[in-house]
Amino acid sequence: MGPHPAVAAIRLAVRRVLTDIRDGQGRTPGRPPHEQPPSPLVLVACSGGADSMALASALAFEAPRLGVRAGGVTVDHGLQAGSDLRAAEVVLRLTELGLEPAESVAVTVGRDGGPEAAARDARYAALDAVAERHGACAVLLGHTRDDQAETVLLGLARGSGIRSLSGMAAVSGADGRYRRPFLQVDRQTARKACMAQSLPVWDDPHNTDPAYTRSRLRHEGLPALEKALGKGVVEALARTAQLSRDDADALDAWAGRAEAGVRDADGRLECAKLYELPPAVRRRVLRRAAIEAGAPAGSLFARHIEEVDRLITGWRGQGAINLPGRVVARRQGGRLVIRQG
Amino acid sequence: MGPHPAVAAIRLAVRRVLTDIRDGQGRTPGRPPHEQPPSPLVLVACSGGADSMALASALAFEAPRLGVRAGGVTVDHGLQAGSDLRAAEVVLRLTELGLEPAESVAVTVGRDGGPEAAARDARYAALDAVAERHGACAVLLGHTRDDQAETVLLGLARGSGIRSLSGMAAVSGADGRYRRPFLQVDRQTARKACMAQSLPVWDDPHNTDPAYTRSRLRHEGLPALEKALGKGVVEALARTAQLSRDDADALDAWAGRAEAGVRDADGRLECAKLYELPPAVRRRVLRRAAIEAGAPAGSLFARHIEEVDRLITGWRGQGAINLPGRVVARRQGGRLVIRQG
Repeated sequence: MGPHPAVAAIRLAVRRVLTDIRDGQGRTPGRPPHEQPPSPLVLVACSGGADSMALASALAFEAPRLGVRAGGVTVDHGLQAGSDLRAAEVVLRLTELGLEPAESVAVTVGRDGGPEAAARDARYAALDAVAERHGACAVLLGHTRDDQAETVLLGLARGSGIRSLSGMAAVSGADGRYRRPFLQVDRQTARKACMAQSLPVWDDPHNTDPAYTRSRLRHEGLPALEKALGKGVVEALARTAQLSRDDADALDAWAGRAEAGVRDADGRLECAKLYELPPAVRRRVLRRAAIEAGAPAGSLFARHIEEVDRLITGWRGQGAINLPGRVVARRQGGRLVIRQG
Repeated sequence: MGPHPAVAAIRLAVRRVLTDIRDGQGRTPGRPPHEQPPSPLVLVACSGGADSMALASALAFEAPRLGVRAGGVTVDHGLQAGSDLRAAEVVLRLTELGLEPAESVAVTVGRDGGPEAAARDARYAALDAVAERHGACAVLLGHTRDDQAETVLLGLARGSGIRSLSGMAAVSGADGRYRRPFLQVDRQTARKACMAQSLPVWDDPHNTDPAYTRSRLRHEGLPALEKALGKGVVEALARTAQLSRDDADALDAWAGRAEAGVRDADGRLECAKLYELPPAVRRRVLRRAAIEAGAPAGSLFARHIEEVDRLITGWRGQGAINLPGRVVARRQGGRLVIRQG
């Protein structure tokens, strides 16, 4: 009798990613061990919740079969009383699964960008440091298809275009360090896999705290949307993420190529040439130019770029446009000048 | 004292569109009337609801000031008892506003594609016929920013990419006949404008009938999403529509150009050249080829194209792929063959 279907599903998802990582490390099946490069180390980031516990269990099962070493790390955000004890408990569970190293790292969460963003920044900085300290080639993250759907809706609420609809990447970070094997696996499957393997899981109270946007979305927004639109919404959102990502990549590449063609001999942007570009490409060229001039990407919204675009498409002698980061855009003698100060 | 702000807002929105229509008709302000082309006729499609009554009132006010003739039409879908009496009442209101012609047309709603799509098809066919009979150059539609937001969410639920996120166009139909002046105006403003002008409005019971997906979205889905994500959701969705439309147009244009370059001397698609294209462009080329071979666009989903794409990017000798419309895609000797039968 094979494993429970949920367990089979999570193992398959992890096996695909581990195979890809191993092949990327230059290991060749069939060659004798002493001719192979050293066995790569893959870490799992585990909160103790169902998604990342399922991921840890699948990693522990698959890694030895693929010649990969597997370890685990849990981040103690220090945001709740007793979080250090919880972290120690997660380390114990990771050890019991056979993961080595298994450790916890404590972080201090700042305030920049709101509580969720600050916790995320602290977490990734800690995971980067742990991965470097142990020489791990990858860190697996337990984000599921449901998390992806929520991320797409959060991006939609920003209204800043298809890049913000593209959710989380399956591979991200420096050298593609972060991998998300569960982006096609739903949360329910991860939870079932834990139950089938009798793995205790911890439900983070933050996940149900309505003070958090993502929590409100998960428990109220998305269920209401499913009720109105039908059960396929999560899958549709996840597919939208993938399609939007590819579209955004292609358009960014186009804008990158177009940029050289719209500058004069002195490198200044020519309004007449910008005018000829498709709006989608022109707006990306303008965004790149604003960022290059010093505007912080995170503060540069679609409405800023629209206003700069009107210097090209709706020119009626309007004045300079102020952008974030003390960047100013103005039209001067047929040229668009974007610079700081 | 000027008009109520809501009335000023709807008039401004209509004035912009009428000016554009008039200029497109070759009329030039300042020239004597006998040197001008004949005064163009613009119709408003009016259900008697707040949005289209507000639109009718703004058209009646602005048209004479811009040298445009204004008429109105209401469609009797025959779906509710007494709908003919309702239509006659709307015609009376349109006449009272000074619109001429003002008439109702009765349609028979079929069943194709579900109740909403069937009613829409019948409605547009009738509006086309009325516009042609009267020689109208444009038909104004009362879709608001809220309708646009709902349309984006309906598209999102299909998960078929950014074209389905691009909502309704400000200009659409044959020769750009249909115009939507209120895509940036919210539903509340239209309702306020009716109240401020003491215009009675009719609330279509279909709009609150939970049997309709759009009605569920309007009364449950979108409010829950706003509660989770904040009040800016409708605006963000409407902006997403515009950005997605421009992006989809640019990528379609790219795919159109790319297509010629990936065919061999006999016009067959070369797999090696397809492989070199960015995924977003390749998928669009494949979609175009499938439609050209006879697959109905409306039945061709993202998952179909993904499967065809794997003949290029994940070739392991797989068999032919069946597509809607009895279209079959297969890989043969380095070529991708897509044809019917």
